[in-house]
Amino acid sequence: MKIGFIGLGNMGAPMALNLLKAGHSLTVFDLNDNVVRLLTDAGAKSAGSPRALASEVELVMTMLPEASHVRGVLTGSDGVFAGVRQGTTLIDSSTIDPASVREFSALAAQRGCTLVDAPVSGGTGGAAAGTLTFMVGGNRADYDRMRPVLSAMGRNIVHCGDTGTGQVAKICNNLILGITMAGVAEAMALGDALGIDAKILGGIINTSTGRCWSSDTYNPFPGVIGTAPSSRRYTGGFGTDLMLKDLGLAARAAKSVRQPAFMGALAQQLYQAASARGDGNLDFSAIIRLYRKA
Amino acid sequence: MKIGFIGLGNMGAPMALNLLKAGHSLTVFDLNDNVVRLLTDAGAKSAGSPRALASEVELVMTMLPEASHVRGVLTGSDGVFAGVRQGTTLIDSSTIDPASVREFSALAAQRGCTLVDAPVSGGTGGAAAGTLTFMVGGNRADYDRMRPVLSAMGRNIVHCGDTGTGQVAKICNNLILGITMAGVAEAMALGDALGIDAKILGGIINTSTGRCWSSDTYNPFPGVIGTAPSSRRYTGGFGTDLMLKDLGLAARAAKSVRQPAFMGALAQQLYQAASARGDGNLDFSAIIRLYRKA
Amino acid sequence: MKIGFIGLGNMGAPMALNLLKAGHSLTVFDLNDNVVRLLTDAGAKSAGSPRALASEVELVMTMLPEASHVRGVLTGSDGVFAGVRQGTTLIDSSTIDPASVREFSALAAQRGCTLVDAPVSGGTGGAAAGTLTFMVGGNRADYDRMRPVLSAMGRNIVHCGDTGTGQVAKICNNLILGITMAGVAEAMALGDALGIDAKILGGIINTSTGRCWSSDTYNPFPGVIGTAPSSRRYTGGFGTDLMLKDLGLAARAAKSVRQPAFMGALAQQLYQAASARGDGNLDFSAIIRLYRKA
Amino acid sequence: MKIGFIGLGNMGAPMALNLLKAGHSLTVFDLNDNVVRLLTDAGAKSAGSPRALASEVELVMTMLPEASHVRGVLTGSDGVFAGVRQGTTLIDSSTIDPASVREFSALAAQRGCTLVDAPVSGGTGGAAAGTLTFMVGGNRADYDRMRPVLSAMGRNIVHCGDTGTGQVAKICNNLILGITMAGVAEAMALGDALGIDAKILGGIINTSTGRCWSSDTYNPFPGVIGTAPSSRRYTGGFGTDLMLKDLGLAARAAKSVRQPAFMGALAQQLYQAASARGDGNLDFSAIIRLYRKA
Repeated sequence: MKIGFIGLGNMGAPMALNLLKAGHSLTVFDLNDNVVRLLTDAGAKSAGSPRALASEVELVMTMLPEASHVRGVLTGSDGVFAGVRQGTTLIDSSTIDPASVREFSALAAQRGCTLVDAPVSGGTGGAAAGTLTFMVGGNRADYDRMRPVLSAMGRNIVHCGDTGTGQVAKICNNLILGITMAGVAEAMALGDALGIDAKILGGIINTSTGRCWSSDTYNPFPGVIGTAPSSRRYTGGFGTDLMLKDLGLAARAAKSVRQPAFMGALAQQLYQAASARGDGNLDFSAIIRLYRKA
Repeated sequence: MKIGFIGLGNMGAPMALNLLKAGHSLTVFDLNDNVVRLLTDAGAKSAGSPRALASEVELVMTMLPEASHVRGVLTGSDGVFAGVRQGTTLIDSSTIDPASVREFSALAAQRGCTLVDAPVSGGTGGAAAGTLTFMVGGNRADYDRMRPVLSAMGRNIVHCGDTGTGQVAKICNNLILGITMAGVAEAMALGDALGIDAKILGGIINTSTGRCWSSDTYNPFPGVIGTAPSSRRYTGGFGTDLMLKDLGLAARAAKSVRQPAFMGALAQQLYQAASARGDGNLDFSAIIRLYRKA
Repeated sequence: MKIGFIGLGNMGAPMALNLLKAGHSLTVFDLNDNVVRLLTDAGAKSAGSPRALASEVELVMTMLPEASHVRGVLTGSDGVFAGVRQGTTLIDSSTIDPASVREFSALAAQRGCTLVDAPVSGGTGGAAAGTLTFMVGGNRADYDRMRPVLSAMGRNIVHCGDTGTGQVAKICNNLILGITMAGVAEAMALGDALGIDAKILGGIINTSTGRCWSSDTYNPFPGVIGTAPSSRRYTGGFGTDLMLKDLGLAARAAKSVRQPAFMGALAQQLYQAASARGDGNLDFSAIIRLYRKA
Repeated sequence: MKIGFIGLGNMGAPMALNLLKAGHSLTVFDLNDNVVRLLTDAGAKSAGSPRALASEVELVMTMLPEASHVRGVLTGSDGVFAGVRQGTTLIDSSTIDPASVREFSALAAQRGCTLVDAPVSGGTGGAAAGTLTFMVGGNRADYDRMRPVLSAMGRNIVHCGDTGTGQVAKICNNLILGITMAGVAEAMALGDALGIDAKILGGIINTSTGRCWSSDTYNPFPGVIGTAPSSRRYTGGFGTDLMLKDLGLAARAAKSVRQPAFMGALAQQLYQAASARGDGNLDFSAIIRLYRKA
């Protein structure tokens, strides 16, 4: 299929490469010439603008940092909507707020196009290996149609419901993630201060009711899980500032429906305190450094 | 072995029965005549006081609601210490603060006895089935010696470290449990309000980084996990007021070592709000009722 | 002076009337014809658009609900910047985020104009009586120049520093206000539950270190301060949803400089919970209804 | 009157001296010989035990750090209740939980004595100057009878209601104090980070709705209030660890009546974090150091 890909960052570039490997005809756009060259060297074409790209393809994927970037790429004077052909499918894999998705989807519909949200989880490792999870928001027929394309980049392609629900799923999952990591950090630091060995404590939690991904896979206490960022000084992984962004999305989404989000709001402030002390670029499990000298 | 058992509540009674089934000679004490009769009908002897009980046995087990009860049973004028023989082993399976355990252990040592803490997890179901987890705090030799006895009542007998660390393990696990349940409740209610189907959301979380016992085994949203208390109107399970007790222990333990426990303190207030609105006797997953009309 | 006034809401209308009373020549704009007629009946002229208004006056005042409205009124195709004459002064009395103020100020400078922020406190009562406090952000010369105009509408005209600092002052004050009100509500409800008479408790607090505006002037417990909204079923006053808006501004401002705002974030969630239960239009002191059945 | 005074700490010693100055016949008890000598040099008699003291006087005052100390002094084998004469009045000015007060009061009644709670505010300065506020819990007749004695040590002698309500008043006031100080610290640090001058910001708050004792008398930002501990590196004043103790009392009291205390619980954790970083002995306004490098 003729596919356009906009946004070749740490996630987007390997995703685009997997589309090429799967045999799709790929046109790319990014402001960074180096990543564009990486893709053209691998066989992709380069477009001069989102508008030009959109005029040549059947499907447009976007993978951008924030809703404002998606807005610019879609609605700008040289944007996708200025060049897109009727009937084109748009997949936005950025992590943004559900309200913006719905707005973009309505704009696409005005041009006879379909936009679905399909944010991912699995990180840069999953993007390279083609094992991402895609959380897809859109109607069933659109989901069925896009599934083969997404399968070139991911392993689990989950239909979440109508437009925007892909974002809702991602936001709610990461809300829990931010809360559980802060909770595990608090409890591991407390146990350590009270004199129990951290590995023993981790072992008990991981076979008991405190068990969670933040403890059994990504435990923030150094040495408990050898493969976790905590065992390599919190490098790599999912940055504190990215977690802050996702908790900010959760807070805004909660506000939009007047839902209280007590635990999420407190966790957000804790990650903000971590960022304020200079840990914004460390893995988010470095939040444990608020609780212990390490 | 000649064993004495003090405290035949919902947990203690089935534990004591399992000791009988394993062939031990059992003497019991409780203020409630009915449960005492249950045990004597099954073959146990009854003692008139903790003091009398202690004078007859090689090992004393206690399973009581709070540290003040343990203190009374041990140090009262008719208490265990008034009658205990030198060399007796004491196992306290109550969930209490580590500082009290250490105090009781020191008092036992003055009488030539050994006291270890061995709080449990697994609930009344695990107590009946003999599949509890015991978290044992004491030295290695004592742990090895008691392991066979505890195996009559539980499946996992974990050595946590020195005296008190059994309580530390339990408190830290339940601190995480209280936090993750509140977080899952918040996120599931938010997702529902934002229009995603709760079962789909649960499914995504449970195969992603938000995965935790509170979501994949005990999800607070009705209908997501058919066997969870949320699917039977929050009856049965682990009561809100018991979670409040455990978070109170965590708060006190944190205070004793000047560790901040932000997430735990907030979760505690949320369960307190749930209790205030009359949900204290419901399963602790009923905390989701703070977030949605259900 | 020839003054234009845009935004004739509950605050703006009485402020504009006070400018008329002070003898200024006034042109107004609002989408609501009724309030426009109120002003024209009092002697103001009406303009067909912000652009038309701006072309006729020496000074433009704006008093609007959110930054997005200010942006529309200033930068829209029929907006102020499309018609404004070089050298015009713009005063924005809306409560918005400091970053937006600085952006609008830069846009004004490009057109040879000066924009200062001058948010107010004092409520609709102060607006009617001409006793508002204006918190002015801009250079000293601009402040000195605008002071006489603002004095027609307010009693305290405070110079806070450079552009944006008026908003900073307002946001920080209301952050404290939101926190103290929640704190007083919590403490008054606690005291009542513990059996002290609320009036006696209020009296002690108000002559002691807990003394604050939220207690001595606006106490949330009914009957403690006869003139407070709590003594008239939380009607009138400063709405819960408005407090939510201001705490949202504080949260965003804090995020922009990576400052943790723990207490503010929690207070925000409490007001959000109050709004969720249907109290959004009640005075913000109704937050006490989260703590007691009243 | 023949008065006994137990507990000659930083607060108790100057209070006892004021009783002497007022012409009362004073007998004192404290484990610290130095402070006892200070009082005997000034004309007091010294007793060998609380029991001995109680047998000689008409009124016993206690001023001790925690409920456990009061319990020991009253109920120990050499305690007050072992020697007290029927009809003796006991005034406890310690800051402890209301439940303990009620328990001690019931024990006193069994001996034909009356015990009232009368915790104080005003600090060591107020104790020396005789300008303390006493918050008295007890019946009206007892209050009227004790008022003249308390007037020798304080300026405001407030009748709060029945036994225990003196403590309730103190706890609720200090709950608000702990919350407002944390809130003011958060807002002042935020304003500073956003570029407004701290003195200007303080001035605006103190004439606006954010006004409170923590801002206008004890502002935590250095230099805003010249006489506050913040302007002398947080020395003197009311220590962080003392605030922690009082917030702990509030938490326990809230738990006893199942009242949520969200803001208090969070503030408590913030002071705990301050204590954990080594600021426990600084004035509690040093909590601002969690928010800014200072």
